[in-house]
Amino acid sequence: MAYKWESNIRKVVPYVPGEQPKDKNIIKLNTNENPYPPSKKVSEMVENADFDILKKYPDATAGELVEKLAEFHGLDKSQVFVGVGSDDVLGMSFMTFFNSDKKVIFPDITYSFYPVWCDLLKIPYETIPLKEDFTIDYEEYLGECGGVVIANPNAPTGILLDKEKIIKIIEANPEVIVIVDEAYIDFAPEGSSCLDLIDRYDNLLVVRTYSKSRSLAGIRIGYAMGNPALIKYLNDVKYSYNSYTMNVPSIKIGSAVIDDDEYFKGTISKVVKTREWFTEELGKLGFFVLPSSTNFVFASHKDKAAKDIFQEGKNRGIYIRYFNQPRIDNFLRITIGTDEEMKKLVEFLTDYLK
Amino acid sequence: MAYKWESNIRKVVPYVPGEQPKDKNIIKLNTNENPYPPSKKVSEMVENADFDILKKYPDATAGELVEKLAEFHGLDKSQVFVGVGSDDVLGMSFMTFFNSDKKVIFPDITYSFYPVWCDLLKIPYETIPLKEDFTIDYEEYLGECGGVVIANPNAPTGILLDKEKIIKIIEANPEVIVIVDEAYIDFAPEGSSCLDLIDRYDNLLVVRTYSKSRSLAGIRIGYAMGNPALIKYLNDVKYSYNSYTMNVPSIKIGSAVIDDDEYFKGTISKVVKTREWFTEELGKLGFFVLPSSTNFVFASHKDKAAKDIFQEGKNRGIYIRYFNQPRIDNFLRITIGTDEEMKKLVEFLTDYLK
Repeated sequence: MAYKWESNIRKVVPYVPGEQPKDKNIIKLNTNENPYPPSKKVSEMVENADFDILKKYPDATAGELVEKLAEFHGLDKSQVFVGVGSDDVLGMSFMTFFNSDKKVIFPDITYSFYPVWCDLLKIPYETIPLKEDFTIDYEEYLGECGGVVIANPNAPTGILLDKEKIIKIIEANPEVIVIVDEAYIDFAPEGSSCLDLIDRYDNLLVVRTYSKSRSLAGIRIGYAMGNPALIKYLNDVKYSYNSYTMNVPSIKIGSAVIDDDEYFKGTISKVVKTREWFTEELGKLGFFVLPSSTNFVFASHKDKAAKDIFQEGKNRGIYIRYFNQPRIDNFLRITIGTDEEMKKLVEFLTDYLK
Repeated sequence: MAYKWESNIRKVVPYVPGEQPKDKNIIKLNTNENPYPPSKKVSEMVENADFDILKKYPDATAGELVEKLAEFHGLDKSQVFVGVGSDDVLGMSFMTFFNSDKKVIFPDITYSFYPVWCDLLKIPYETIPLKEDFTIDYEEYLGECGGVVIANPNAPTGILLDKEKIIKIIEANPEVIVIVDEAYIDFAPEGSSCLDLIDRYDNLLVVRTYSKSRSLAGIRIGYAMGNPALIKYLNDVKYSYNSYTMNVPSIKIGSAVIDDDEYFKGTISKVVKTREWFTEELGKLGFFVLPSSTNFVFASHKDKAAKDIFQEGKNRGIYIRYFNQPRIDNFLRITIGTDEEMKKLVEFLTDYLK
């Protein structure tokens, strides 16, 4: 059926969110969540919560959370912006910072939302092919452009780009904003983050999330850090679009857990240890595995098609991620779960590939 | 200080969110919240909650909440869209539905975010002056345009537009979408809503919120209802922008309370009763009060300037809303609080105006 108003509305190719199966027996290794539970500070906070405050609007500035994050990272609160997951933070950042006629650049293989936001917000862009080994050729990012977005470590490759190379990109682009999306940085070696560069470069924005290392994908918190001028422009746009996006549970839970750094460090180190073991196992099974600095691995089997492995895993109740996309359609992105979950996956692979 | 990147970013006139004073002794009648606490279903739900699920992404479709809302309103789930407050729902709707070169129209005095979203999303628009008595002249909305937005009841006037007149507007505009923003409709007489028209008119979208009648401004839930094609286009855009906006607490709390309709009807009727009493009191004090179908009143004093009353109220710890804006700069928007709060306000006004 065609409606009279069809030509006057916006139509986009619908994005299909990753599968979220409801069956609790399914081993879910397809959306890069943390297999370990959230900090106990969540339940402690909720037990003492006053639900009456829910009748009021939240603090539009999410001040409590911003201050906690600033303190945690040793920054001033004027250097921190919060949003509904890093998708919200990145969407707002694209809207705010990519406003020139020149093309914004990012890799051809990276977080799939970057080109989607550009299309939606009418931002011109160009993708730069990763090298054959799936690393970023930083020299391709030194010319004139409308802005740069680098996921570091990159997804779905898992590969980390040297900080020194990112510095070269930032220094070559003083007239535009360079966004470094550090969703997975907590799983990378210490010293990999660009966060300590925000005082040095006024065109650098570093983005983080609670969804991976903080085991809180369900609470939707992302944040950006940069110099106060950048953060102010970002807030101006955000308040103009929707002033009250961070709900009270987000602000309260996000603030309560940040102090529990010891717990997070523990779960991160467990995930990293499991990743190293699992990578070795994959090697024994005939997989080529890209070097991962994240909570997932990106792997290709020497004989068996990725799509078939993906499908058979699903049949057996183990969900991993397959991308039907040029260059990576023979790779699988596998989230690092608990040791038990990964052992079951190795058992399945051993059985299936024998 | 000027940065090299300043010309390449987007700058907006910053919107200043309404004041949210932290002092609990302040009587807060400035942001149209409900003075009564949320349903007890909130604490019941949270007591039985499993915090472990927070490590996973929420269901991107917020299916549980969508189904509950559909059931509550006697609709199919394909007719319901949910978002982070009605601001998110309206912003997404503007982005999706107002995509022609013709001007979107709405009143000159209405919800202040409509022109802001148009500016931000580069949507052409025109405001139509309210009549002298602050009612909407529906005949002005019957010509060719890019879309229509009617807040009904309107804010900050509080005035309800006859459903029959809205039907004329909808019928005159089959080629564009007509959005009826019913944030305050639960405080209006029964039968005022346009919700029962969505099956009849495929170009009608009705928007609601949990922030007013449901005492849950802090949880950020808004929703839209319309024919399945409209809802699908809206979801396509929403998923392309940010798939996971509704966090787990929102989905769970929003779903838990909806059945507690009896409680909501009780608080709504208390607010309406207080509004009628308070309106009468204002009349005795020399105020001209517009006929309100909402949880606030819009009033102007015969002698005393609105700005002065606003300022003196603030000095005495009573916050009401003043708009420094043409045509309404001698009016005050006063949220209906508890009887006790309104009595204190009447005491202050009696004292101040004597």
